Amino acid sequence: MNDTIDYARYDRIRPIRWTGEALELLDQRLLPFKVEYLSCTSGDEVAAAIHSLAVRGAPAIGIAAAWGTVLAAREIVADSGPEAAQKLEPALQRLNAARPTAVNLAWALARMRSALAHAGSDWRGVLELEALAIAEEDLAANQRMGGLGAALIAPGSGVLTHCNTGSLATAGFGTALGVIRAGVAQGRIERVFAGETRPWQQGARLTVWELQQDGIDATLIADSAASHLMKTGAVQWVVVGADRICANGDTANKIGTYALAIAARHHGVKFMVVAPSSTVDMDTASGDLIEIEERDPGELFGVGGVRTVAEGVRAWNPVFDVTPGELIDAIVTEKGVIERPTVEKMRAAFGG
Amino acid sequence: MNDTIDYARYDRIRPIRWTGEALELLDQRLLPFKVEYLSCTSGDEVAAAIHSLAVRGAPAIGIAAAWGTVLAAREIVADSGPEAAQKLEPALQRLNAARPTAVNLAWALARMRSALAHAGSDWRGVLELEALAIAEEDLAANQRMGGLGAALIAPGSGVLTHCNTGSLATAGFGTALGVIRAGVAQGRIERVFAGETRPWQQGARLTVWELQQDGIDATLIADSAASHLMKTGAVQWVVVGADRICANGDTANKIGTYALAIAARHHGVKFMVVAPSSTVDMDTASGDLIEIEERDPGELFGVGGVRTVAEGVRAWNPVFDVTPGELIDAIVTEKGVIERPTVEKMRAAFGG
Repeated sequence: MNDTIDYARYDRIRPIRWTGEALELLDQRLLPFKVEYLSCTSGDEVAAAIHSLAVRGAPAIGIAAAWGTVLAAREIVADSGPEAAQKLEPALQRLNAARPTAVNLAWALARMRSALAHAGSDWRGVLELEALAIAEEDLAANQRMGGLGAALIAPGSGVLTHCNTGSLATAGFGTALGVIRAGVAQGRIERVFAGETRPWQQGARLTVWELQQDGIDATLIADSAASHLMKTGAVQWVVVGADRICANGDTANKIGTYALAIAARHHGVKFMVVAPSSTVDMDTASGDLIEIEERDPGELFGVGGVRTVAEGVRAWNPVFDVTPGELIDAIVTEKGVIERPTVEKMRAAFGG
Repeated sequence: MNDTIDYARYDRIRPIRWTGEALELLDQRLLPFKVEYLSCTSGDEVAAAIHSLAVRGAPAIGIAAAWGTVLAAREIVADSGPEAAQKLEPALQRLNAARPTAVNLAWALARMRSALAHAGSDWRGVLELEALAIAEEDLAANQRMGGLGAALIAPGSGVLTHCNTGSLATAGFGTALGVIRAGVAQGRIERVFAGETRPWQQGARLTVWELQQDGIDATLIADSAASHLMKTGAVQWVVVGADRICANGDTANKIGTYALAIAARHHGVKFMVVAPSSTVDMDTASGDLIEIEERDPGELFGVGGVRTVAEGVRAWNPVFDVTPGELIDAIVTEKGVIERPTVEKMRAAFGG
């Protein structure tokens, strides 16, 4: 086992590229069959890309919105940061509305606003540096979380992940998938399984493709095969990301996460949540207070545009669920590891 | 609440029709968009239909194989039942090999063989009557199980089912879906949810379509949304079928069933298995002894012929799992209800 990580080998994908002129977003709707970047030259184009899921993953959405702010700034004239902030507000609100549930979309925009608050005539440069900082901090946080999370995993382990929490969902390296990358690089993880993640198939379309790009061997399973997999003893950890972590450790994440946590506890498999501290929302006391986004039932009526369900059928399509803190063995952020989260431990780590 | 059931209203679909000349099988590969019967005029055509999943569902497969035996008999000449049995054996073995895991395929063929053992020159008529009996007994068993299972469900309940265990999978009425039909007809069940059942989508393609034909309102969910559904309190019972029930109550059924049983226990939701006694295999002591069929990983690479997964990806596709008897609250067969199954209770009900 070797605890250093060859990032150049294990992290080759970048979903967000800033050219100085435009924001290039790897269009995730076309993956895994086409690797094509969408070029955005205005804040509203970025908002549209977020809304249409061309860019996805809570951290990546925040970073894209930060660069969207930089692009929106080109359409206004202002002599100071505060004046710019005021003129940019409508554009910021359109960016914020593009995916209202991702807590670090709002967080990234708040950072952009704050940066403007004390900026003078050089406010454009300040904005650009802040966007760059958000992206770079995200990558650094992911690398740090990768090391912290992997250290919890015993050599020879197998892991199961859900949805896509990889380079594609972040500035790079990934959150849960960063832990898996680090664990594989360090020789701790010997088996990687990815659930397909209905209805959008992020696991099937994105995660196994992304790992393939980095030469990491992974096995795709149906979401409903996870319990049977755990029973075989092939996995020791479930490692997932988070859309929002509450003050008591309750974690909102992609639909299906909660089922994995229940099954993991039943089998004595450990359960790890990996997310930057910007995902932690100490103002929300528990998961009961989170409104679960329900999307178009039509997403369940087929895959890849092919309808498989009769006309007139009704469906229920909640796209997130809440995993109670009691079912979580470790929450990993760039600030450290919280084992078996409680309100007290969360407060000690994140204040509030 | 009214405990009589209007079968004409709640059970309109027949997947298997015997015309006297041919066996007509509702081609389930074309559902829900085309209702088309496949006409089989030989035993091997029936074997091919079973193998290709045109007919599916353990009881329906057994019935189709029984009629397949009648058709195969047209190709031989024999003066007595035993002579016919000997000459039919190669055809019976081809039928048996069409889906080796369905325990009542072998059971139905064994009944056809037994019927021949004591038959004289009228053996063709004996065979035809035996096939008819297998089909009629299945329908009667389903109607009886429907009543027995529904009686366990309190008025005002919601239920969740998995895969397709309906008229489509049987001679009619269905096993688990028969309980749901009976429960709806009696006003006990107010909410019906069906999991889509990856990878073949039997829930999405078949169950919600079948219920729609009978005017039963059902809501489709992603398999991975079941735990979140249970947390909302919308369902009080999970009701599923079985491919094989072991001597200790361990039950092999469609992949995903085990996950539902774990989640049900976690939420205090009851779990019911409904299957004819021909599914009970007292010679298999426990589920650990069942070999789980793994099918082509390619079934996870897309839906309806549309590929969604990158080339070169590896997948694991077990199509059954085993739910331990301890997680089952009730096993319902036509012989009665076994609550919280144990070896002793199973032996008392089924011998062995």
